[in-house]
Amino acid sequence: MSAPSAAVWRQSQAQNLYLDSLGMGLDMGAMALDTGALDNLKPAMVRALAAMRALEAGAIANADEQRRVGHYWLRAPELAPEPEMTVAIEAARAAVHALVGDIVAARIRPPGAPRFTHAVLVGIGGSCLGPQLVHDALVGKGQTTTLGLQLSFVDNTDPDGVDRLLSRLGDALASSLVVVVSKSGGTKETRNGMLELRAALSRRGLPFGAHAVAVTSAGSKLDEYAQEHGFIARLPMWDWVGGRTSVTSTVGLLPAALQGSDIDALLAGAARMDILTRAEDVWQNPAALLAAAWFIAGEGVGKRAMVMLPYKDRLLLLSRYLQQLVMESLGKRLDRNGEQLMHGLTVYGNKGSTDQHAYVQQLLDGPDDFFVTFLQVLRGRDGDSIEVEPNVTSGDYLFGFLRGNRRALAERGRRSLTIWLQRLDARRLGALIALYERAVGLYAELINVNAYHQPGVELGKRAAAATLRLHQRVLLAAQDEAQDVAALALAAGSDDYDEVLAIALHASENDQLRCLRQPGQPPWLWRFARH
Amino acid sequence: MSAPSAAVWRQSQAQNLYLDSLGMGLDMGAMALDTGALDNLKPAMVRALAAMRALEAGAIANADEQRRVGHYWLRAPELAPEPEMTVAIEAARAAVHALVGDIVAARIRPPGAPRFTHAVLVGIGGSCLGPQLVHDALVGKGQTTTLGLQLSFVDNTDPDGVDRLLSRLGDALASSLVVVVSKSGGTKETRNGMLELRAALSRRGLPFGAHAVAVTSAGSKLDEYAQEHGFIARLPMWDWVGGRTSVTSTVGLLPAALQGSDIDALLAGAARMDILTRAEDVWQNPAALLAAAWFIAGEGVGKRAMVMLPYKDRLLLLSRYLQQLVMESLGKRLDRNGEQLMHGLTVYGNKGSTDQHAYVQQLLDGPDDFFVTFLQVLRGRDGDSIEVEPNVTSGDYLFGFLRGNRRALAERGRRSLTIWLQRLDARRLGALIALYERAVGLYAELINVNAYHQPGVELGKRAAAATLRLHQRVLLAAQDEAQDVAALALAAGSDDYDEVLAIALHASENDQLRCLRQPGQPPWLWRFARH
Repeated sequence: MSAPSAAVWRQSQAQNLYLDSLGMGLDMGAMALDTGALDNLKPAMVRALAAMRALEAGAIANADEQRRVGHYWLRAPELAPEPEMTVAIEAARAAVHALVGDIVAARIRPPGAPRFTHAVLVGIGGSCLGPQLVHDALVGKGQTTTLGLQLSFVDNTDPDGVDRLLSRLGDALASSLVVVVSKSGGTKETRNGMLELRAALSRRGLPFGAHAVAVTSAGSKLDEYAQEHGFIARLPMWDWVGGRTSVTSTVGLLPAALQGSDIDALLAGAARMDILTRAEDVWQNPAALLAAAWFIAGEGVGKRAMVMLPYKDRLLLLSRYLQQLVMESLGKRLDRNGEQLMHGLTVYGNKGSTDQHAYVQQLLDGPDDFFVTFLQVLRGRDGDSIEVEPNVTSGDYLFGFLRGNRRALAERGRRSLTIWLQRLDARRLGALIALYERAVGLYAELINVNAYHQPGVELGKRAAAATLRLHQRVLLAAQDEAQDVAALALAAGSDDYDEVLAIALHASENDQLRCLRQPGQPPWLWRFARH
Repeated sequence: MSAPSAAVWRQSQAQNLYLDSLGMGLDMGAMALDTGALDNLKPAMVRALAAMRALEAGAIANADEQRRVGHYWLRAPELAPEPEMTVAIEAARAAVHALVGDIVAARIRPPGAPRFTHAVLVGIGGSCLGPQLVHDALVGKGQTTTLGLQLSFVDNTDPDGVDRLLSRLGDALASSLVVVVSKSGGTKETRNGMLELRAALSRRGLPFGAHAVAVTSAGSKLDEYAQEHGFIARLPMWDWVGGRTSVTSTVGLLPAALQGSDIDALLAGAARMDILTRAEDVWQNPAALLAAAWFIAGEGVGKRAMVMLPYKDRLLLLSRYLQQLVMESLGKRLDRNGEQLMHGLTVYGNKGSTDQHAYVQQLLDGPDDFFVTFLQVLRGRDGDSIEVEPNVTSGDYLFGFLRGNRRALAERGRRSLTIWLQRLDARRLGALIALYERAVGLYAELINVNAYHQPGVELGKRAAAATLRLHQRVLLAAQDEAQDVAALALAAGSDDYDEVLAIALHASENDQLRCLRQPGQPPWLWRFARH
């Protein structure tokens, strides 16, 4: 054994950041970040930090949609560029506290039960992923109230998914608050989920409005609907908060407060990380270091995927949250100058050490097309631990597997970085979220893309609307006498036989059409009739 | 509108398979599978099918571990190469039925409650992913008994994860069956989870053995433990069933039966798919077609990731299940001749249309490095639907979004394939699982790798054991007088300061050491003492 000199060790620690004010740290020691690459990137990162300052000062950072980008103001309202925004942010936060206080104290209560015991959040994408992450990470930990509501989610337009939730809720539906979240107020999946829940309440003779809260932009369709139907409350969203960065807005705060989590701590943690990630000493800035690590590992084109491995059951949903934050922000066809880029940075992963028994085999033996992000929570559990072997706890094993996997990957020349938190709580979760928000913003500057729009997704929505219209025409075209697909398509005014066949099959299995066919017959012989 | 000729339409339908005996289909129309590529691949696929016949006839298909590969015999015991295996498979299935019958009828019951109401499965990787998929997909649907047990899972060695589960269970722990699943019987995470649950029962004065069932190989450590502690039952596993293909063995059947799902239908669906995927007419064989599609899309080296998008909430876990099945089987360094390959086929995804509001932006606008697998369930829900617009249901929207996304991807030149099921039930879930098992086996033949071992994962386990040993030495080396990391490392006999620091930080936050440091101090000045 030859001990390293102090100088050598200090060198190996140079890419570790200790964020004392948060009880967190970043360890880049296994990311192969040579100083030459960091030096080369420094001027671009200095410019990226300047762009983030402009964004925080109120620039139209989302140029395509002509919007400001203000999620950082949500945890430091005094930094908002207009005094009215500061007032609005503070008022919204106060409104969340007041509403939750009224609900928990049963000053607001459902018509058919003494108090609200459950809440169902209806939302999709940015209106659900943040609340789901906060729920899974914090539920039951450090509660601000013992009367927190039990949360569940409708994040799709799958009728069977709604039925399964309703069956789980059972009679608790009568004491369930329904929180409908849609910034635009026009998201179809969310509208459908809301209508399904309204129908379920109605079947029990319960009025929807007395169970419902809306989180939406003033004047949206949902806002109007909420007014018409006498919702318990309407909480605001603003066009300068994007869905995927809305977890520190009313979108994330209301459900978190309803489950009894400490939203002030969540905001304070995010605010503290915002301060640390404004640091102009670039490689002392954790978000800049993180963005640089992604950029260097992916050679500026995202060629290595980000594998998220939190060694903590409660952070299982982090990868799903970051899939949206990273991939929707950085998966872009054009840069800001309109140059073709087709950039992407793929995110996947679940949790350790579980995933070591799944796909880590490929990480070790397969292609070098990823870097792992280990998330480590130092404290294993709140109380005391049993020993699973003399002097060894389950948590020691969890720690050992993390370090072992990190070392095994390094021995195979695979990259990893580690982010650690002393404990997992509202404050550090807020800080972690803010760290990734800023790192994504900085990375977007490095590749010169607008991180705050999502131009691609409209294509799928338009195509879906076309299918839904054709579906209606096919249903109208169906007769009592069965027709083949060609005849049905002709009558429906379409030349897309494959699409008409897909529609007819869907309709046949859902009591909208009847399908007449013999086993083994090819589809051009199948015939369809009115149900 | 110019209608396509019958010939043109037949051409576009040529890559659709209709599996009438299962009510399922494969649509390869958007996979860019030109007939030239398929023709080129045909001889290799014919050989792959021959290799699978040899495997099913009892060849040592897992050469490295000198094992047969027999998951196909589990649903057709008469095909097993030895009569004793046939008997053993049938006996195990009968034992599952008998045990579950006794538990449901309360002939076997816990010491402190009138019947078992809950079950906790303790397992990791292949001993948990299959049961979790089956649970999420089938719970509450087509129950064989109204007295099914409510299932939960411990799939990690996270003490906080266990605490959270115990807090959810509350008093139901006293009526909980603990199913411990480990083929080798020596998996540390599973051992730790078992000991945590034993301690929790013990705190209530309840004996562990009277709550526990083991699923493990005869003579394993777990098997011995189960005998010593008087477990309710021990169910067999065999070395010719791999973890990631064990869902149709006792591993998957016991939990599925406990929750009231129809395991005979699950097995029958798998058996039916096995028959269809033995077809020698290669492009009429759905597994061969699927494997060919993966191979051609990935140019034989897995260059396009498999994005799984089931448009059905109940299939959310399919991607996690397939991450293991595909990536652990096909993520390999060496081919069978020992040639360096470093092959991988990455799997990620959650569900549609939810993911359209997350990372689908990148799929549409980012790099062409993936193909999507759409999973469509034709029947939207079991009962009647409300209309969310005139004549339109939530399920029509779900269908519309699937088709819209498929079309949008195709317009951008991105590939997708669609697998559809008339309904989601035990039979079709079994068929879907068998389809992917065979497709993975065939693909492995195309790239000439052993799909049934996982040589890489040992590396991480060995490194973890080294960390755990060093952890113990660091704890022993700590004194009442605080030492810096260098001194601690010297006393513990290590020259790896980074590792000793990581251990000391973990130990400090878990009441094993005390850390003495000032905010802002670099880590070489931190000192650690005995707790």
